[in-house]
Amino acid sequence: MKIILSGYGTMSRIVEALAIEKGHEIAGIFSLQEIENPPYPVYNKVENIHSADVIIDFSHPDNVAPLLEGASIHKTPIVVATTGARERLQDLMDEASKSCPVFFSANMSYGVHVLTKALEFLTPLLSDGFDIEIIEKHHNKKIDAPSGTAVKLLEAIQNSYTASKKDSSDTTGKTYSPIYDRSTGEHKRDKMEIGMSAVRGGTIVGEHEVLFAGTDEVIEITHRAQSKKLFADGAIKAAESISNKKPGFYTFDTI
Amino acid sequence: MKIILSGYGTMSRIVEALAIEKGHEIAGIFSLQEIENPPYPVYNKVENIHSADVIIDFSHPDNVAPLLEGASIHKTPIVVATTGARERLQDLMDEASKSCPVFFSANMSYGVHVLTKALEFLTPLLSDGFDIEIIEKHHNKKIDAPSGTAVKLLEAIQNSYTASKKDSSDTTGKTYSPIYDRSTGEHKRDKMEIGMSAVRGGTIVGEHEVLFAGTDEVIEITHRAQSKKLFADGAIKAAESISNKKPGFYTFDTI
Amino acid sequence: MKIILSGYGTMSRIVEALAIEKGHEIAGIFSLQEIENPPYPVYNKVENIHSADVIIDFSHPDNVAPLLEGASIHKTPIVVATTGARERLQDLMDEASKSCPVFFSANMSYGVHVLTKALEFLTPLLSDGFDIEIIEKHHNKKIDAPSGTAVKLLEAIQNSYTASKKDSSDTTGKTYSPIYDRSTGEHKRDKMEIGMSAVRGGTIVGEHEVLFAGTDEVIEITHRAQSKKLFADGAIKAAESISNKKPGFYTFDTI
Amino acid sequence: MKIILSGYGTMSRIVEALAIEKGHEIAGIFSLQEIENPPYPVYNKVENIHSADVIIDFSHPDNVAPLLEGASIHKTPIVVATTGARERLQDLMDEASKSCPVFFSANMSYGVHVLTKALEFLTPLLSDGFDIEIIEKHHNKKIDAPSGTAVKLLEAIQNSYTASKKDSSDTTGKTYSPIYDRSTGEHKRDKMEIGMSAVRGGTIVGEHEVLFAGTDEVIEITHRAQSKKLFADGAIKAAESISNKKPGFYTFDTI
Repeated sequence: MKIILSGYGTMSRIVEALAIEKGHEIAGIFSLQEIENPPYPVYNKVENIHSADVIIDFSHPDNVAPLLEGASIHKTPIVVATTGARERLQDLMDEASKSCPVFFSANMSYGVHVLTKALEFLTPLLSDGFDIEIIEKHHNKKIDAPSGTAVKLLEAIQNSYTASKKDSSDTTGKTYSPIYDRSTGEHKRDKMEIGMSAVRGGTIVGEHEVLFAGTDEVIEITHRAQSKKLFADGAIKAAESISNKKPGFYTFDTI
Repeated sequence: MKIILSGYGTMSRIVEALAIEKGHEIAGIFSLQEIENPPYPVYNKVENIHSADVIIDFSHPDNVAPLLEGASIHKTPIVVATTGARERLQDLMDEASKSCPVFFSANMSYGVHVLTKALEFLTPLLSDGFDIEIIEKHHNKKIDAPSGTAVKLLEAIQNSYTASKKDSSDTTGKTYSPIYDRSTGEHKRDKMEIGMSAVRGGTIVGEHEVLFAGTDEVIEITHRAQSKKLFADGAIKAAESISNKKPGFYTFDTI
Repeated sequence: MKIILSGYGTMSRIVEALAIEKGHEIAGIFSLQEIENPPYPVYNKVENIHSADVIIDFSHPDNVAPLLEGASIHKTPIVVATTGARERLQDLMDEASKSCPVFFSANMSYGVHVLTKALEFLTPLLSDGFDIEIIEKHHNKKIDAPSGTAVKLLEAIQNSYTASKKDSSDTTGKTYSPIYDRSTGEHKRDKMEIGMSAVRGGTIVGEHEVLFAGTDEVIEITHRAQSKKLFADGAIKAAESISNKKPGFYTFDTI
Repeated sequence: MKIILSGYGTMSRIVEALAIEKGHEIAGIFSLQEIENPPYPVYNKVENIHSADVIIDFSHPDNVAPLLEGASIHKTPIVVATTGARERLQDLMDEASKSCPVFFSANMSYGVHVLTKALEFLTPLLSDGFDIEIIEKHHNKKIDAPSGTAVKLLEAIQNSYTASKKDSSDTTGKTYSPIYDRSTGEHKRDKMEIGMSAVRGGTIVGEHEVLFAGTDEVIEITHRAQSKKLFADGAIKAAESISNKKPGFYTFDTI
């Protein structure tokens, strides 16, 4: 495939190296910021993008937004891995997916996808007698908290809970809600709260633990990423998968 | 319920305390061994058992065998938690279940049951790119290894793998096999081996971890029991569930 | 020993059971609150306490305060395990220790004491290239966060760091400071912050993990308590140790 | 520094990349095996080595042995990271260290060194009431078990225990001994055994956990390596440290 990188930060460079290793070609970089000594043509207007098979984006909302807004112009399939500004980006992706294939995942690793599925499986089985907590650990340079992946896991639990109660007599419509800080005043844990703990240190690539704590027993399920290459690999596989697909919105669930 | 305890060791005494706390009554003890100052009538012949609602067994194969062999005489529902001599006991339970309800689980905790289900869910999703390993930890008085629960988890993985390959082109019929010691000579890990590690120390009640290790990522799922009361609780709940059922063989999957 | 229990909640009842099992005698209960059907004499005035060898306190600041204020009257050795209102209680304990032996620990388990010592050992070795984080997990009924033990571990790290820098050229006097919530706005981790995460769920007795995260490697040290009996055992051992000592303030470091 | 690489496998190439990044120069490769298209001069005779500041060895006993045997000829400081054939290599290193500085560590990471020190600190405090177990996890290509690092940790525990008992009344001279397999027959854990569990899977770089299991509490201390670069970094730092030193045998304890 001929790949255009959206942004040229750490993750884009890992995508670059792995894509070349796999026999793909980097056709250019789309970046609103200047890049020193770029090894490929740099575009900052969507009009200039052509003849690429796919765009792979690990950048930030401001850089990927014009790519999505200009989808009807460049019509190039795009894999979005940027996690900030979730609602705004979702709107843009929905619109763009009318013109080209758009793939999105808050976490490009297959293992995290499986973890998400496992939580959807476990939540209805454990929601009665067990309390749920999420702990994520990342490197000391990560400035947002909780991680996009932790939020994705929380949503999987919330949606799975709601779905499991839909046909039951429980018509409260209540579901789990997150809590980020327990140090302010005394506080009795509510059955429907999910504590979200964000640990930061060293060069930890990414670790997500979901704890189900019951009476005299706990179940823990943990995903641990060992290198950022993992996410580049997932993004390239997603790119390979959508490069020949019809316009539409794709996720790990649909490919 | 009127309960007869099979055996009167540590676990039976925990069942006794919890059952009384829950409003049940201990009607007697079935034991081939003599018991010093027993607080209840002690039986060593199945003929003498009558007017109990259920038998709860945490003993050993030699003590539970006559109870199963005499099922057509006493016709009392029985919950079996003894884990040794698996094949022999399974035959006896199959026969007994023609005369009365027989419930069996290698582990009486609900959480371990859920862990087993989770492994059946995860194995087909991860068997391609991930290696599987099982680690169990128990107190320093446990003399058998690996634990009955670890074997049960292994079987769940094996059966789930076989079922997932049944309709595929993979007709080798090969499945995972356990390995217990890697210290004897150099050995390259086979994709289809599952290392079973048995850790022993202190008063650890029981911890089971299943590791799925892939390329640059791992998923770990762990169950940790905090007290033996957990198993007593599961056995009493199973007893409540089968005490009014028809003869048959019951497990956590069928109640 | 003849023991007086301060308070008669869950922990005091566990002390009661274990003390009797060990051959000690419960002489009475000191409680400002009324107790229904108390099995022992109940005192609410220090003047009435006499002829006991030791007081064991697992209550709350309001109940233990009069016992400490009245030390010159009852002169009975006292083991304090209440963790709230730290500064106020420390002042009262300092004063009381002029009249009788006073033992205090924010955590009565020997393992937590050893963990504290291990952190004092590790901090100077790892403070340069590693970030430090503390995660504690407790049952869903615990209303304060972080746990008294987590605070104790933090203090051990802070003091050890300060001591290690005393003779060095680093004269900033700066040490680690805790942070409880990272979800409010973007935030770059400071080298001198220690994230304190409080996880709550089920019946978890108490788990404390300290993470040292460096470049491409982490060291984790974890203490896990399995039953509350552990803390009762530690308190009784402390009581045995101070019951014949001279007036003074004692901790695990000095007995 | 001008560096000669002993061997040119995965680890040597990681040393190469990191050394160049740090401003060092690769002067050549010492290898008894042929290397395809080597980017540097390849030597297979120690006589040909000259004008290098240091040799860094991540190879195997057969490749490093002639370098040690020829130390009096090349007189070049050498960092040895090969872990097999321990006794034979130790003899060769002792002899070589008369002619040049020789640095050895079974694990080049600083964190593992600190873990070793922590075990020497913890063992005397915990040997009375706690059982000790070691669990190591590595990738599925590792053919030896247990890992050299796990053996190093075991030795640290054994030596620390022996030293702590030297002045006591315990004159049995007994210390901990390893056990690798508990699945053969029933076996009651001996207080002085240390279970060594070897877990293999995926691309796990290296994880070592030491468990101290007592009555109702456990302490776990774990080191997790995230990338092999960690070991290259440790070896280069050791090389920098010994390149100007006097002949002698050096370890992390003496630099």
